[in-house]
Amino acid sequence: METHKQLTIGLFGFGVVGEGLYKVLQQTPSLKASIKKVCIKNADKKRNAPATLFTSDKNELLQDPEINVIVEVIDDSVAAFDIVSTALKNGKSVVSASKKMIADNLPALLALQKETGLPFLYEAAACASIPVIRNLEEYYDNDLLHSIKAIVNGSTNFILTKMFEEKLDFSAALLLAQQLGFAESNPKLDVEGYDALNKWTILLNHAYGVVTAPSEILFTGIQNIQGSDALVAREKNLDIKLIGQAKKLKNGKVAAFVLPQFVPVQDPLSFVKNEYNGVVIESGFADKQFFYGKGAGSFPTASAVLSDIAALRYNYCYEYKKLYHHKPHELTNDYYLKVYVSFDDLKYIPKEEFEWIEEWHAQAERKYLIGVLHCSKLINQQWWKQNNTSLILAHDGIIDDIDVVNLKKKSLELAGVI
Amino acid sequence: METHKQLTIGLFGFGVVGEGLYKVLQQTPSLKASIKKVCIKNADKKRNAPATLFTSDKNELLQDPEINVIVEVIDDSVAAFDIVSTALKNGKSVVSASKKMIADNLPALLALQKETGLPFLYEAAACASIPVIRNLEEYYDNDLLHSIKAIVNGSTNFILTKMFEEKLDFSAALLLAQQLGFAESNPKLDVEGYDALNKWTILLNHAYGVVTAPSEILFTGIQNIQGSDALVAREKNLDIKLIGQAKKLKNGKVAAFVLPQFVPVQDPLSFVKNEYNGVVIESGFADKQFFYGKGAGSFPTASAVLSDIAALRYNYCYEYKKLYHHKPHELTNDYYLKVYVSFDDLKYIPKEEFEWIEEWHAQAERKYLIGVLHCSKLINQQWWKQNNTSLILAHDGIIDDIDVVNLKKKSLELAGVI
Repeated sequence: METHKQLTIGLFGFGVVGEGLYKVLQQTPSLKASIKKVCIKNADKKRNAPATLFTSDKNELLQDPEINVIVEVIDDSVAAFDIVSTALKNGKSVVSASKKMIADNLPALLALQKETGLPFLYEAAACASIPVIRNLEEYYDNDLLHSIKAIVNGSTNFILTKMFEEKLDFSAALLLAQQLGFAESNPKLDVEGYDALNKWTILLNHAYGVVTAPSEILFTGIQNIQGSDALVAREKNLDIKLIGQAKKLKNGKVAAFVLPQFVPVQDPLSFVKNEYNGVVIESGFADKQFFYGKGAGSFPTASAVLSDIAALRYNYCYEYKKLYHHKPHELTNDYYLKVYVSFDDLKYIPKEEFEWIEEWHAQAERKYLIGVLHCSKLINQQWWKQNNTSLILAHDGIIDDIDVVNLKKKSLELAGVI
Repeated sequence: METHKQLTIGLFGFGVVGEGLYKVLQQTPSLKASIKKVCIKNADKKRNAPATLFTSDKNELLQDPEINVIVEVIDDSVAAFDIVSTALKNGKSVVSASKKMIADNLPALLALQKETGLPFLYEAAACASIPVIRNLEEYYDNDLLHSIKAIVNGSTNFILTKMFEEKLDFSAALLLAQQLGFAESNPKLDVEGYDALNKWTILLNHAYGVVTAPSEILFTGIQNIQGSDALVAREKNLDIKLIGQAKKLKNGKVAAFVLPQFVPVQDPLSFVKNEYNGVVIESGFADKQFFYGKGAGSFPTASAVLSDIAALRYNYCYEYKKLYHHKPHELTNDYYLKVYVSFDDLKYIPKEEFEWIEEWHAQAERKYLIGVLHCSKLINQQWWKQNNTSLILAHDGIIDDIDVVNLKKKSLELAGVI
């Protein structure tokens, strides 16, 4: 049994995650993995580790033949891509936590992994402590995954929780998140959905074999969600959550996006509060599964990196089964969405874009409607991100085009038009 | 990448799980795993598969050199042990779903696995579709796991849910579970906690390296839970769940049992309703994690068997790290439990066994008390399973012995005794 590879690690980055990993490894001697060298930008900064461990010369790690694993947990996605590609080309296994780097460079990284055949693992880049990538790789085959829905960003979930539970408005909730360390001082990446989008780009590949650029995916964040939206949700016994979703449509193609959504309070994702993340997977055989845990932070992220390091001992590689062993799924924008839109003035709303509008609430200062429109219309014209407009997907808001025709016909019939 | 072992399977059992697996494998050709032969007891019974596939001679599978994987999903735990041991001795990898067989024969099976070095996987034997064994093996090192709490039996959870949500009494809820196929016609194994106990015996090994017989573990089921207990719980905003729990105490030893427990409604395990299972793991680095899914049934169980088969392609073995690579944890009964006990007549309650009693409610027809007693007293005298008495662990009801002295002293001080 004991034929495991001895792992000698070169670590890039010694911020909260890097230092967390260093501590975690010290407390898990059974792994037989040791950090030989740590590359950091600022070699003069005082660190909680022996000075001899550190260097600012990346080649001391990348060209050391004794180092067989590069772990990369830095913030700069351009530098991270350079490190990861060089490491793979130099024959080293790689563990990374850089979601933006991976999402931005997915085709190149996949090619490099295929070419070298080396393990390139990045569980920490999706939901940190939740083993979602490994579970998607190991437990769901191509034809069996009906849908995946997830809360993948802890900052925005914390803010929404406070808006709901303590009735804070958006800016007060954001300030609280910043004070408690759950949001960055520049919160744009989290709040406007970019971080969730990067993670979703990565998970789409492991869920459905879809290789796409983040820029191709419909998304927004929670920047325009108002206290009044939370009030509407509460009246209907719903929560609002920022959710990444991918669903196989009847035609076999995949609908995917990151949008705020109404969620019934009995839904597993409604259970996910504060800075936690959660993933709901629906599949043909395992039925509905729900994974819940901390999606960020020093130790939760370090524990995900650790699990990747542990897997390297038996040379575990992602197989990308859905990409290489099957005909990968095609991403489509050809479907309809039922959405709630709240706004200050009707003039900002292009009514003609909607197939139909089911509800109008135009009395209050903050007005809203519920209507159905084609996904591509949302992608082509971004009126719904502007002028303080907020858009929230209705619960079960994905409508296959076949359904939409029937529903429309029915509603017109009911209205006595046809 | 494509150096996977070709898997040729001999399958024992073609009940709901066996047939489910057969169908699942047909729908996942990418696995490149095929069933060569199925051994069943009754060769004449009509099956939904070609007749040539079946035999009633076990040696046609166990001695076929072409078959390199034995999958065993039969009900008879004695026959199952014979099949699994012979298969391992004959050099075949084994996947099993027989919790009772594994729990009853753990030391012998561990020895055989060690001796042969062959993969012996049984994810389906714990929580079916929830990958709890694999996650315990891969994600939590010895010193990092603070506790594991889980709902591992779907039948009892279904019954408790109906008692709470629809205010059914125990027997009506049991009848409904039987009608819907969530409980056996002889429900004793589920209802009295034996099934949960077997699963807990297995999980204790993967969580803490504890190898113990089911008979050594404190347990009961839900057979004596009354509607009045549910009323008391509801008043305090608590649920009642049958929970397997293991917790590392301050002295480094492990407390473990299967008991009904009060659970706050905001607890992840309270979210687990009906026939679902759920597992909450608390660890030093990943913090709190929660896994939720179907714990029984044809396809959820088959999907767990399938994931084990998939892992065999890269010769995945459980490492039993906590058993072999560390000093395994020791199971202890030297701690205290705070329990709720309801009863018909005070004469059945040995008051002197309690360290102290915090609450008495003796007015109603059904009486109850809340008190603290030593774990070994519960094990040595089983009065609490008799005479229609029901015992439910208080929330956070494990008390380390150091704490108990302080708490007791404090309560005596408050009472003016010292």
